[in-house]
Amino acid sequence: MACKYGTHRVITPKGVLPQAAQVIDNSMKIHENEILINVQSLNIDSASFTQIRKEANDNPDAIKAKILEIVNARGKMQNPVTGSGGMLIGEVAEIGSALTPDVQVGDKIATLVSLSLTPLVIHEITAIHMNIDRVDIRGYAILFETGIFAKLPDDMPVALVLAALDVAGAPAQTSKLVKPGDSVLILGGGGKSGMLCCAEAMKQAGPTGNVVALCVLERDRENLSGLCNEVIICDATKPLDVLEKALAANNGREYDISFNVVNVGDTEMSSILPVRDGGIVYLFSMATSFTKAALGAEGVGKDVTIIVGNGYTRGHAEITLSLLRENEKIREIFERRYV
Amino acid sequence: MACKYGTHRVITPKGVLPQAAQVIDNSMKIHENEILINVQSLNIDSASFTQIRKEANDNPDAIKAKILEIVNARGKMQNPVTGSGGMLIGEVAEIGSALTPDVQVGDKIATLVSLSLTPLVIHEITAIHMNIDRVDIRGYAILFETGIFAKLPDDMPVALVLAALDVAGAPAQTSKLVKPGDSVLILGGGGKSGMLCCAEAMKQAGPTGNVVALCVLERDRENLSGLCNEVIICDATKPLDVLEKALAANNGREYDISFNVVNVGDTEMSSILPVRDGGIVYLFSMATSFTKAALGAEGVGKDVTIIVGNGYTRGHAEITLSLLRENEKIREIFERRYV
Repeated sequence: MACKYGTHRVITPKGVLPQAAQVIDNSMKIHENEILINVQSLNIDSASFTQIRKEANDNPDAIKAKILEIVNARGKMQNPVTGSGGMLIGEVAEIGSALTPDVQVGDKIATLVSLSLTPLVIHEITAIHMNIDRVDIRGYAILFETGIFAKLPDDMPVALVLAALDVAGAPAQTSKLVKPGDSVLILGGGGKSGMLCCAEAMKQAGPTGNVVALCVLERDRENLSGLCNEVIICDATKPLDVLEKALAANNGREYDISFNVVNVGDTEMSSILPVRDGGIVYLFSMATSFTKAALGAEGVGKDVTIIVGNGYTRGHAEITLSLLRENEKIREIFERRYV
Repeated sequence: MACKYGTHRVITPKGVLPQAAQVIDNSMKIHENEILINVQSLNIDSASFTQIRKEANDNPDAIKAKILEIVNARGKMQNPVTGSGGMLIGEVAEIGSALTPDVQVGDKIATLVSLSLTPLVIHEITAIHMNIDRVDIRGYAILFETGIFAKLPDDMPVALVLAALDVAGAPAQTSKLVKPGDSVLILGGGGKSGMLCCAEAMKQAGPTGNVVALCVLERDRENLSGLCNEVIICDATKPLDVLEKALAANNGREYDISFNVVNVGDTEMSSILPVRDGGIVYLFSMATSFTKAALGAEGVGKDVTIIVGNGYTRGHAEITLSLLRENEKIREIFERRYV
């Protein structure tokens, strides 16, 4: 039986898991414990897509060429600069004989593991949806035995589900960590992940809590009304500005917990400084530098627990899709922006 | 008054804290809320020193030149490749008029903030102690108002204290996280930080716990006898080997918590795979890749809490020095290896 983690497809270097590999085998003949997917769309991770857009000067043909170059070289859509991937949707095309999954050939699914470890072949890129980080393709992908996925629900458009599931980890972790009465700072609150975190934090912190969203664009203020207690407009790469404005929005007190869901680098200290000793700093941005976070807290003598955003937690797809079902405003914004 | 975080000394880029800065001002005229230190030794962070040694082919003169090049260019000893620093000891030379610290001019102290944010001038490198990552110098450094430090105790040699305080964060976090009965996996258990974590984990997990140390060198087996329940010899960059051997050492069960204190890259998955859903993965290695950790857990569908090692937690110096006082074996190894 092939390895449940997919190591049988690692080409270089040997002995690592597919995510850490430089190159993986993307031949589309499946093993008995793999699933073949006929891919329709890739939702590129925001940090990765931003980097590719910059490198390609926002030129669609250059973006296409860059994506093809990466997939052809690596056998997977893992941005070599950011290390990050994204996710995909498609139809189940074939199920390995050793598996009995909760789907059938022909079912539409979204993979919930990163593209950074998913064998992928692109025959053609048919469209690039610049503002929603989405790329439509003709091609195939492979899901390993441990690869989690979600069957697409009937009550929402596919594109909406895709946009939400891509960031399902963040609101689900928010749901588990925020307690009634907590003060919560969400850096990058105006983004896709940020809005979901805001809404979930409001739900968990309740009427005695205080949820503050930090955004860089003034236009996010309106989108976030009702989704948090206060919006502050500030560049997240300026930790001292962030500190001053964030404390002012919380009666001068430090926060119990901060979530970082921005998509640019150098925002580690902005997430750490406003949090109280004994509080939690949850870093979801793929542009986070490990050493900047670790040394930064030590450098200012902050006794906080800094957590690496894990895109998977039990029930994350259900938690996030529920949020879209019950929150009219978020669903409306998501349909307008990301579909 | 100058900024308590030291931002007044940031030269480029503007608006960031000293740790994130490319270049800081290392002029040695102190502000009213700074302390001037006459430096005796630098303890270079292990990941940084390993990188410099490799680049310099273990040639002492080339190592000296590299260190001087970094400090002259940046105004601080922050390795541009690893981003990490280390710590220093020296004598208090001057105390700013606005401060009333618990030390006097002439007292010996160890700084407990990273060299990656500490203004430093090196007049001369007088010795390089290759196997203990230590560099003796003539020079000066500046401590900011928020810069934590420890007065050196009288009952231990300076070099011993320096070696222990350099990694004080790891055993202190171990002390706070490990509960009685826990199974604990320590990757890099044979290193400086690792031995302290092992001893502290044994103390906290107690007789019903199971502390397993993973080391790459067979010779560490003997050093660790008595400091943990079992030693396994394995290359930490081979996650599947690690998984197999680690489970075998824990009756086939996954661990409650793992600590990563290795000093090489690509060990994220080795820390994640052996831990149970709902468990904790504590990453102390400065060679950790944030995206590899975040995406790696998601890629194998692991619902674990991944924590960024924070070198500071309240009482960390006291916790670590106590460990040396009460544990004869560790003190003996530390005196032999690092002094």
